[in-house]
Amino acid sequence: MTTRQLHLNAFLMSVGHHEASWRLPESDPHANLDIEHYKNLARIAERGRLDSVFLADSPVQMGDPGRRPSGRLEPTVLLTALAGATDHIGLIATASTTYNEPYNLARRFASLDHVSGGRAGWNIVTTAGVEAAQNFGLDDLPAHRHRYERAAEFVEVSKKLWDSWDDDAIVADKERGVHAEADRVHVINHEGPHFKVRGPLNVPRPPQGHPLLVQAGSSEDGRDFAARHAEAVFTAQQTLDEGKGFYADLKDRAARFGRDPEQVLILPGIVPVIGDTEAEARELDAELERLIVAEYAKVQLANRFKLSPDELDLDRELPGNLPTEDEIEGAKSRFTLIVELARRERLTVRQLIGRLGGGRGHRTFAGTPVQVADTIQHWFDHGAADGFNIMPAVLPSGLESFVDKVVPILQERGLFRTEYTGATLRDHYGLPRPAGQFARPGVSA
Amino acid sequence: MTTRQLHLNAFLMSVGHHEASWRLPESDPHANLDIEHYKNLARIAERGRLDSVFLADSPVQMGDPGRRPSGRLEPTVLLTALAGATDHIGLIATASTTYNEPYNLARRFASLDHVSGGRAGWNIVTTAGVEAAQNFGLDDLPAHRHRYERAAEFVEVSKKLWDSWDDDAIVADKERGVHAEADRVHVINHEGPHFKVRGPLNVPRPPQGHPLLVQAGSSEDGRDFAARHAEAVFTAQQTLDEGKGFYADLKDRAARFGRDPEQVLILPGIVPVIGDTEAEARELDAELERLIVAEYAKVQLANRFKLSPDELDLDRELPGNLPTEDEIEGAKSRFTLIVELARRERLTVRQLIGRLGGGRGHRTFAGTPVQVADTIQHWFDHGAADGFNIMPAVLPSGLESFVDKVVPILQERGLFRTEYTGATLRDHYGLPRPAGQFARPGVSA
Repeated sequence: MTTRQLHLNAFLMSVGHHEASWRLPESDPHANLDIEHYKNLARIAERGRLDSVFLADSPVQMGDPGRRPSGRLEPTVLLTALAGATDHIGLIATASTTYNEPYNLARRFASLDHVSGGRAGWNIVTTAGVEAAQNFGLDDLPAHRHRYERAAEFVEVSKKLWDSWDDDAIVADKERGVHAEADRVHVINHEGPHFKVRGPLNVPRPPQGHPLLVQAGSSEDGRDFAARHAEAVFTAQQTLDEGKGFYADLKDRAARFGRDPEQVLILPGIVPVIGDTEAEARELDAELERLIVAEYAKVQLANRFKLSPDELDLDRELPGNLPTEDEIEGAKSRFTLIVELARRERLTVRQLIGRLGGGRGHRTFAGTPVQVADTIQHWFDHGAADGFNIMPAVLPSGLESFVDKVVPILQERGLFRTEYTGATLRDHYGLPRPAGQFARPGVSA
Repeated sequence: MTTRQLHLNAFLMSVGHHEASWRLPESDPHANLDIEHYKNLARIAERGRLDSVFLADSPVQMGDPGRRPSGRLEPTVLLTALAGATDHIGLIATASTTYNEPYNLARRFASLDHVSGGRAGWNIVTTAGVEAAQNFGLDDLPAHRHRYERAAEFVEVSKKLWDSWDDDAIVADKERGVHAEADRVHVINHEGPHFKVRGPLNVPRPPQGHPLLVQAGSSEDGRDFAARHAEAVFTAQQTLDEGKGFYADLKDRAARFGRDPEQVLILPGIVPVIGDTEAEARELDAELERLIVAEYAKVQLANRFKLSPDELDLDRELPGNLPTEDEIEGAKSRFTLIVELARRERLTVRQLIGRLGGGRGHRTFAGTPVQVADTIQHWFDHGAADGFNIMPAVLPSGLESFVDKVVPILQERGLFRTEYTGATLRDHYGLPRPAGQFARPGVSA
């Protein structure tokens, strides 16, 4: 196929991205801890030939445990279980550079890449929120800039560790009694402001060389980080214009850092609420909105704005005394997106909560399968997306609808694969396998 | 069954515990990274109704990569993959308290326990060796005592995190819109010399309450740690008398710490080399010894003794100028075991290397299935063991021989289960499920 191809990722989250999805009669409220539920989701996504499944993460209990199924299995563990239940689909886990050590994390991703036959991806996050910091001996969240500097060095160390075994290190020569050639396994002796790591890794080079690197921060620091390091970017964009602006900006930055902009794929989130008719889609959307308990969301919104909950009135617009993005220490770009959405559409707090309930700032789109396919194609054709991060409001039903009703339309239009053509996540995203940085010149795997 | 029952754990290690096993014609030298190899091993162990499989670990590339298949998948990842390939058998992963954060590690074990339906165990290690320290920003290994103090606090924090969700926290009340009762999910606010952790964990209480806690250090600090915290102890004992001494000492210590000694199970390692005749077993043992490359082992032995390799002569006994156990910073008890073995049997360095090649200090026993069953029963009946840590010299063949030839003899003697009678690892080991420390009085799961 020569037509430019869409990339589609299924963002998995318990029984759906809508915070009230667990209250629907169809939803199993214990599914968030049920490995069979996740295996089913991954198999549905694979049936649709999607590029990958993805898990968000933060090492903290988020918000009121009454609000939704909030306990979540650790993503590298959960994705390893999904590796055994699938054959092709990529497996992208979020993990924090602020609260991990590079040796441990690089090793887990290398292990997941080996176990899955080259299907691992890492969504690199610096982790916002003071409560996460307090789970790791800190009183406060480290400064935004400091976290991004650490993240950059963390990625640098990780790449050195993944490269510390040359691709041809293992010779398995039984006759000589040499399993791996010692001079093809490298001490890295990294020393930087944040890390000092001797190496080598105790896992040979992963099948993909490096797991696919993904990033999702859209602040200034986040965009620069993505432009330097990320191969795929998950982002929240509410309008086509915002999407085009972000897309152009990020591709520009990548080029300025000397990278090929085509090797930085941009995937905005979309929360499709799919009905066979528009009315059916809108009815599901409205039912979910009715099930939201506004008090939970009001407390969270107040925390985000550094207000006390009684400074927010559910039936009025946001107050004028909000902090600026500079005064916020984490999730900066999401903060700005939410404030702009509320101001632009003059939403009351209750209406804003309704709009955020589905995708926490990601764009919700209720419509028929053709309408969903149309909006995906429209953004794809107009310089706002290389693909989409699919965030079904309700799971598994929303993913089933997407795979069984929207994907065939995209396939018919020649925009999406009908069979997997490669074995690894890099193959699906059309990205090259990096060469090892310590390998002898002229040697390839 | 009222007869006291043996507990048997399969210690998995690439193509076998003997360092030269990979050089046998039958061995796949790439199996150490092949998930299908490990699934096969776990299924063989489950066919034999063994209690558990176990993976050793250290976050460091150990020794010369030429010597043996040394790259190893991270154990929580690998065991998650094995959880999906098995239904009953326990899954015990080694993880370091020196080079992890409690929030991350407690969460991974909780996740593994959920994914496996209550089959997770944690072998708690403090990690010896300066090279591991140098992968984590340190110049030197932290002192033995310091590592054990940190380990004790690490376990304390982990238990608080596992208990931070009461067993009945999740009510999933769709009508009220309450998923979990907020007052049954506890901030732990731990503050100690080594850790400050707010909590709660973001994973609800694991099926087993706590994963099974295992320990393998046999130094003074290690024994005290095991007696306070461990529910199963893996240990290296060369002779019945040493085994009896260790067994009595550890049970005594447990009682002194106010614990029921029957809830601390002691499993010495055994490297069975099984033949249908004694001659066949001895021939396999001799073939493995012939395949050892003595130079690799000599370098490692010299490092252990803080000597340079040329201070060791392959054809002489150990020199007199060895350090004492106090002068060794890691693996203290293994050091003493090796020196005592060499002195007692007046072994040359080459002979010592041959003896260590199979089990790195664990007892090697070459014999027929009946002889292996006899020695297991003899130790079990004479106060030296509650079961055994089975360390086949060659894998998978050595585990197959054990399961198909030795286990039936032990079953016939009424010493070992013929079917699993419980669902969890705690069930297999006959150990109780701990109550949550923050739960309201009178409430049980």
